[in-house]
Amino acid sequence: MNVDRPTIAVVGAGAVGGYYGARLAQHGHDVHFLLRSDYETVRSRGLVVESCDGNFSLSAKDVRVYDDPRRMPGADLVVVTLKSTSNDQFEKLITPLVKDGTVILTLQNGLGNEERLAELFGAGRVLGGMAFVCINRVGPGRISHTDHGVIRLGDFTPPGRSPRAERIAALFNASRIKCEVLDDLRWGRWQKLTWNIPFNGLGATFDLTTDRLIGSDDGRRMVADLIREVIAAARADGVELPESLVETQINNTTTMGPYRSSMQVDRQEGRTMEVEAILGEPLRRAHAHGVATPILEGLYRAARVVDGARGK
Amino acid sequence: MNVDRPTIAVVGAGAVGGYYGARLAQHGHDVHFLLRSDYETVRSRGLVVESCDGNFSLSAKDVRVYDDPRRMPGADLVVVTLKSTSNDQFEKLITPLVKDGTVILTLQNGLGNEERLAELFGAGRVLGGMAFVCINRVGPGRISHTDHGVIRLGDFTPPGRSPRAERIAALFNASRIKCEVLDDLRWGRWQKLTWNIPFNGLGATFDLTTDRLIGSDDGRRMVADLIREVIAAARADGVELPESLVETQINNTTTMGPYRSSMQVDRQEGRTMEVEAILGEPLRRAHAHGVATPILEGLYRAARVVDGARGK
Repeated sequence: MNVDRPTIAVVGAGAVGGYYGARLAQHGHDVHFLLRSDYETVRSRGLVVESCDGNFSLSAKDVRVYDDPRRMPGADLVVVTLKSTSNDQFEKLITPLVKDGTVILTLQNGLGNEERLAELFGAGRVLGGMAFVCINRVGPGRISHTDHGVIRLGDFTPPGRSPRAERIAALFNASRIKCEVLDDLRWGRWQKLTWNIPFNGLGATFDLTTDRLIGSDDGRRMVADLIREVIAAARADGVELPESLVETQINNTTTMGPYRSSMQVDRQEGRTMEVEAILGEPLRRAHAHGVATPILEGLYRAARVVDGARGK
Repeated sequence: MNVDRPTIAVVGAGAVGGYYGARLAQHGHDVHFLLRSDYETVRSRGLVVESCDGNFSLSAKDVRVYDDPRRMPGADLVVVTLKSTSNDQFEKLITPLVKDGTVILTLQNGLGNEERLAELFGAGRVLGGMAFVCINRVGPGRISHTDHGVIRLGDFTPPGRSPRAERIAALFNASRIKCEVLDDLRWGRWQKLTWNIPFNGLGATFDLTTDRLIGSDDGRRMVADLIREVIAAARADGVELPESLVETQINNTTTMGPYRSSMQVDRQEGRTMEVEAILGEPLRRAHAHGVATPILEGLYRAARVVDGARGK
């Protein structure tokens, strides 16, 4: 991505994509949203954002929305915010947007998203990032942003800071989206998994908010043992994480009070849970490296059972 | 128990104890109920039973209720229907009822109840039984009996049919309580665990009704693997159960439709779950015999986390 005013496509504009895309559009960028369920509403009424960083909206005439990627322009930057459970749609949704020099940034949860994009579109195009943000879709075309918002991103391969990643971060930072470039994307992915695996995984499978999960000795011990397994898997995968993360993640979560993780929200609202990206793929990495992760293994299996019970 | 009109004490008269005790009293037996939460209501208004085998009630003047076992007469037969989570109350609640010849029949769930009673009062007094019944306390002093009702019982030691067990069964059968004597109580206990461990354990821990639990391939596979572990543990404990139980239990449960197991009900209503009797003690037996039961092990640990989150 090496142009002054890039064409930006947001693929899967739910809460996260809608919010970041709207911030970029608010700051004068050329943003094109690919929507599914909210397409008609946003097309006719625009996008409304209530944000702790300032409310704003994009009117129907200011927002460029599509329900078919084949009608969208080729993009310099594709921002992927689909749920990872829709990764089988990558080819259909992203192929029409790719041209020479297109860069693809996935802000999805868990592991395996960059790999899949790299297989389909070439590793050289792919960046990944984590959005640390509290955001909800409160209605069709209505987004509520209540806390945080930083994006940490980096190139998929080779790992390490690149001028390209710096340019994207600068573009975000100039649009009221705090953004940092990671020294190593894989570090960021595994670091975030030390929270997501216990709190999304156990929280959704047991249907417990974070405070109840760590409200007993048994609960804290299980969360701690699980984080230790994730640290061991990360290490075998080439990412060194400090043991102190066990305590840090639990302490930080304690200060959050009662919190429903995104996967627990998905469960409660009858939506597919991101079991493979958050639990399955990390488990397969651990297996590939011969690392024993018995709690993660049981949790993955259990989460599949709970996810399979959806809508029944 | 070798008397014509025995004095019967029901200890822990919730839904199960209230129902069976009321049936015995209805048929002219000398029944004394030890109650806790419903004591005042039953004392002043009696006990109302809506039953698929015929509604009836015991008036306040016909029902003998107590809130302190020290005011109760010595019993020929003590029927224990406490939740197993209250087994630390055995000594305090049952000691005042025991005299020469007192027989103690526990109808509680899971493993370990007979052993604890035997430790306290002597193995020779103890019988155990399983109540296969759909019963709920629908209000103070109000019990709803919707299906089944058979009790299968046997001596704790030595195992095998005894004249004593036959006499108790006859007494129940003459009071509209279908009752069978088991050739081996341990067989009955383990056989029931092949249902209770998966459907109470997983159902409560994942908060899934039985139909949702076995509504997916992943769910059926986990239930089946768990039943196989229970069969292996039972075998090591000296009880031979057929592999066909795996299929039988799943098929029978399929025909039940959506069903909340008692442990799931306890979870949803914020009550202590019977984790130790239904999961912990069977797991400890498996460990003692060196049998690998990894799913049961993970489930036990998970159920403790969920139980520990109660009321938080």
